[in-house]
Amino acid sequence: MNHVLLINSRDQKGLISKISTILYQNDLNIVEMKEHVDRASDTFYMRCEFTGDGNIEAIKDKIKKELPANAQLTLNPKKKKDVVILATKEHHCLSDILIRHYFSELDIEIKCVIANHTNLKELVNKFGIEFVHISHENKTKEAFEQEILDYTKKFNPDYLVLAKFMRILSSNFVKHYPNKIINIHHSFLPAFIGANPYRQAYERGIKIIGATSHFVTDELDQGPIISQKTIQVDHSFSAEDMKKAGRDTERLALAEALNHAIDDRIFVMGNKTVILT
Amino acid sequence: MNHVLLINSRDQKGLISKISTILYQNDLNIVEMKEHVDRASDTFYMRCEFTGDGNIEAIKDKIKKELPANAQLTLNPKKKKDVVILATKEHHCLSDILIRHYFSELDIEIKCVIANHTNLKELVNKFGIEFVHISHENKTKEAFEQEILDYTKKFNPDYLVLAKFMRILSSNFVKHYPNKIINIHHSFLPAFIGANPYRQAYERGIKIIGATSHFVTDELDQGPIISQKTIQVDHSFSAEDMKKAGRDTERLALAEALNHAIDDRIFVMGNKTVILT
Amino acid sequence: MNHVLLINSRDQKGLISKISTILYQNDLNIVEMKEHVDRASDTFYMRCEFTGDGNIEAIKDKIKKELPANAQLTLNPKKKKDVVILATKEHHCLSDILIRHYFSELDIEIKCVIANHTNLKELVNKFGIEFVHISHENKTKEAFEQEILDYTKKFNPDYLVLAKFMRILSSNFVKHYPNKIINIHHSFLPAFIGANPYRQAYERGIKIIGATSHFVTDELDQGPIISQKTIQVDHSFSAEDMKKAGRDTERLALAEALNHAIDDRIFVMGNKTVILT
Amino acid sequence: MNHVLLINSRDQKGLISKISTILYQNDLNIVEMKEHVDRASDTFYMRCEFTGDGNIEAIKDKIKKELPANAQLTLNPKKKKDVVILATKEHHCLSDILIRHYFSELDIEIKCVIANHTNLKELVNKFGIEFVHISHENKTKEAFEQEILDYTKKFNPDYLVLAKFMRILSSNFVKHYPNKIINIHHSFLPAFIGANPYRQAYERGIKIIGATSHFVTDELDQGPIISQKTIQVDHSFSAEDMKKAGRDTERLALAEALNHAIDDRIFVMGNKTVILT
Repeated sequence: MNHVLLINSRDQKGLISKISTILYQNDLNIVEMKEHVDRASDTFYMRCEFTGDGNIEAIKDKIKKELPANAQLTLNPKKKKDVVILATKEHHCLSDILIRHYFSELDIEIKCVIANHTNLKELVNKFGIEFVHISHENKTKEAFEQEILDYTKKFNPDYLVLAKFMRILSSNFVKHYPNKIINIHHSFLPAFIGANPYRQAYERGIKIIGATSHFVTDELDQGPIISQKTIQVDHSFSAEDMKKAGRDTERLALAEALNHAIDDRIFVMGNKTVILT
Repeated sequence: MNHVLLINSRDQKGLISKISTILYQNDLNIVEMKEHVDRASDTFYMRCEFTGDGNIEAIKDKIKKELPANAQLTLNPKKKKDVVILATKEHHCLSDILIRHYFSELDIEIKCVIANHTNLKELVNKFGIEFVHISHENKTKEAFEQEILDYTKKFNPDYLVLAKFMRILSSNFVKHYPNKIINIHHSFLPAFIGANPYRQAYERGIKIIGATSHFVTDELDQGPIISQKTIQVDHSFSAEDMKKAGRDTERLALAEALNHAIDDRIFVMGNKTVILT
Repeated sequence: MNHVLLINSRDQKGLISKISTILYQNDLNIVEMKEHVDRASDTFYMRCEFTGDGNIEAIKDKIKKELPANAQLTLNPKKKKDVVILATKEHHCLSDILIRHYFSELDIEIKCVIANHTNLKELVNKFGIEFVHISHENKTKEAFEQEILDYTKKFNPDYLVLAKFMRILSSNFVKHYPNKIINIHHSFLPAFIGANPYRQAYERGIKIIGATSHFVTDELDQGPIISQKTIQVDHSFSAEDMKKAGRDTERLALAEALNHAIDDRIFVMGNKTVILT
Repeated sequence: MNHVLLINSRDQKGLISKISTILYQNDLNIVEMKEHVDRASDTFYMRCEFTGDGNIEAIKDKIKKELPANAQLTLNPKKKKDVVILATKEHHCLSDILIRHYFSELDIEIKCVIANHTNLKELVNKFGIEFVHISHENKTKEAFEQEILDYTKKFNPDYLVLAKFMRILSSNFVKHYPNKIINIHHSFLPAFIGANPYRQAYERGIKIIGATSHFVTDELDQGPIISQKTIQVDHSFSAEDMKKAGRDTERLALAEALNHAIDDRIFVMGNKTVILT
């Protein structure tokens, strides 16, 4: 079984030596080891995937002892991630995930798809996934979000994936899933925050459009960016044409972000990400 | 000699028929003809390049009579454009233009390079181009700009190219050269307007950086966009690394914009461009 | 109802004038008109989409009279295209088409999916599309192909789409569908013709991989190219990693080619395509 | 002073631990450390850049002792590379290098530019670089190459850069500079090997063109690939248009390759490269 070791600590001379020596002495096989030192904050990041038997808890303790105070360390078996997907009406990102999942190209278990409209029910059910309709109508935002929280709670998901979920989540909601909600926004952030980014892009007359996948935080479209993709457009594109052309970009950006997440490759550093690939 | 016909008018049935028939009846050879109809504003754009002898003024009049009221029409010999370049300290966009010009890859005549610092003088002079130092120090912005205006006036340039000119031009300056000042901004606008866009990009933690070439208007970095380019970056890029990596993007975006401009391919439509390539 | 006029003829002065005048005189509304003149072969290509009532046959005759001898002209109502898809075992291109079709993003009617294996049956049936298993085993290539021909014949499809159909079609098969069989090859042709292009790419140590969608002709992977896409890879990619990474490239190249085809935008010029977008 | 440690050996458990521990015990500061294990050949690659005082020779010996037999190891001060450039008539790659060098963006010393034509002399001399004309006319290939070898020998260059040098070098020449001759070929290899790749690309009707920078080996255009870039083209591009459009691609691919080379980031593995960035 593969294990993934993630370390995030103040940088210090000898960290790689100490950590790799412990792994070596315990006869573990390193499959992949990646490090990054952020010079601005003097922070060391490491992702190490290894195979081998051994007392994992003991190894974890040994490594911990070698790290600076306040270091963050996780060491877990590599496992399939549990995911809840939120959607609204648009299908393309959801379809993409359902198909990749159906053919075992994404190492996730989709616990359910929750949507505030019903038009995607038929699609979701085709793939044997539970579709849950939670309408936002005739209730407060708080009530709407509470229903979602209540439903997702039982799955204890590793990630909530907003596959074109078009409602803005409150701080209260977000704090239940810190750095666990992955959104796809249909612009190259920070351009065109908020509603109708393709309309905004069209009005501005830009020559590239893009998509951004990011973790959701308190501030709208301001969370740590995981993946961005762009494509060229020109004056012949209406806002609607941009929207159509942008779909593939959105699917690819979200799929990339999701792959990094389920592979335990993303560290959040302030409002940025360090992605060890 | 090639001529370029540019038309910008309210759309109307039969425009292509009428215009192309006049050209045909005058035995002109169409080298390239491109049209675009903007549906939102119901506007017709045409660029037609042709060869052939004939009374150009008479042809122009005939076409004009067939167009809706308020149509804009120009019909001129295709000619080398006169350009004045403004720079500050960074060389890469300027170098790129100088080299392309030196090897006749840009159909322009560079009348002079004006800079508010002197470090690029040696480079410019290598290519036999006049370098003019106009400092912004110890004078008002008005006085600084007036010096530039006075110097450029005598050349009556077709375009002013801001090849990393790092001073913000006033409305007063801009109104002397409407849609004739081409700037390169080191971000994918509208993200990161204003100073230090790479620093802003770094702080935001984005995964793509870009460059935008646009016409300069009254509002900072808000003019009609001509060309945009992006490249991927990641967490390992410092703001300085982004700046270095962005240089090629800037050079390519500005070169593309300049090529469109000198080839008479750009129409300005409100705050957008229609580029008939 | 929209009509699409396609013309392919020797170039001649006045063609645009004559054609557009006939359309104008018949009070037709041009939605989009694109022309290209290939200088090397002196050939004129035009695609014109228009709306309006009128005697289409009469208009067609009038235009034909104005064209040079041997000109090719079609003028048909714009219509949904009938498509038969051929597949083998890989799902990604097929899934992509099924999903786009299901959500009405591709203006096609999928008559059936024929595959020489059965693993995709379940997927295809989910979308209410007929899945036909025609095995290539225990029979000659001729017999195998004849079965496919017999089955497709009744649908009289506009296009056969090879969505990762891994059998090489004989000249005899191809001649039944000239310029109507669209293939996706998993390399940037003409590099890596034939079997296992990702393996070939890996062995050669290339830094980009690609996909090519093209019309199928007699010669393996030599037909007119419609669309190509590439992405960057590096030394860390195994042949299998390239295969995975290439899937999105393949999907996008095939989807683009298919969109051009169903929109009647592709002319075949010798072994090349002219695509009027 | 920075040192660069390069290791290339059979893979073995504990290598990172052993190497990093030696560096740590000698109180060296690791600036950047990158490893790659090629699973197919079971080979370990490492590039480690560090600062610090110490007995470099002693450290090198200690590390060597820990490595498997036949391991290759170099440990040298990071230094400016000496480069001789070969050119023919085209300027764009040469210009690019001259300009980057002039503004200290490439950490190289250009010892001279050798060309078999004279049209680039004026450009080269502008930058204070020696231009050497060695004609290929009226002499055997052997004699021509011997002249170049004789001239370059005295500089003992780290790299020979073929900046659009259009003569094919013999095996005899190449063996003097194994993995030290960097070429730029104007196609995405392995497509369009040999002469006139843009003409070949045009004839084939491709929708992307590219450029490849690679080490030169005995076999024409078959050496280890360092960098590749592509751009989209369409049916409107003549072979000449492709050539023009391809220039920027060539410049960028060569500049990237050169940057990797002068930064000691490239390992040659059989006929491939491992580039530790």
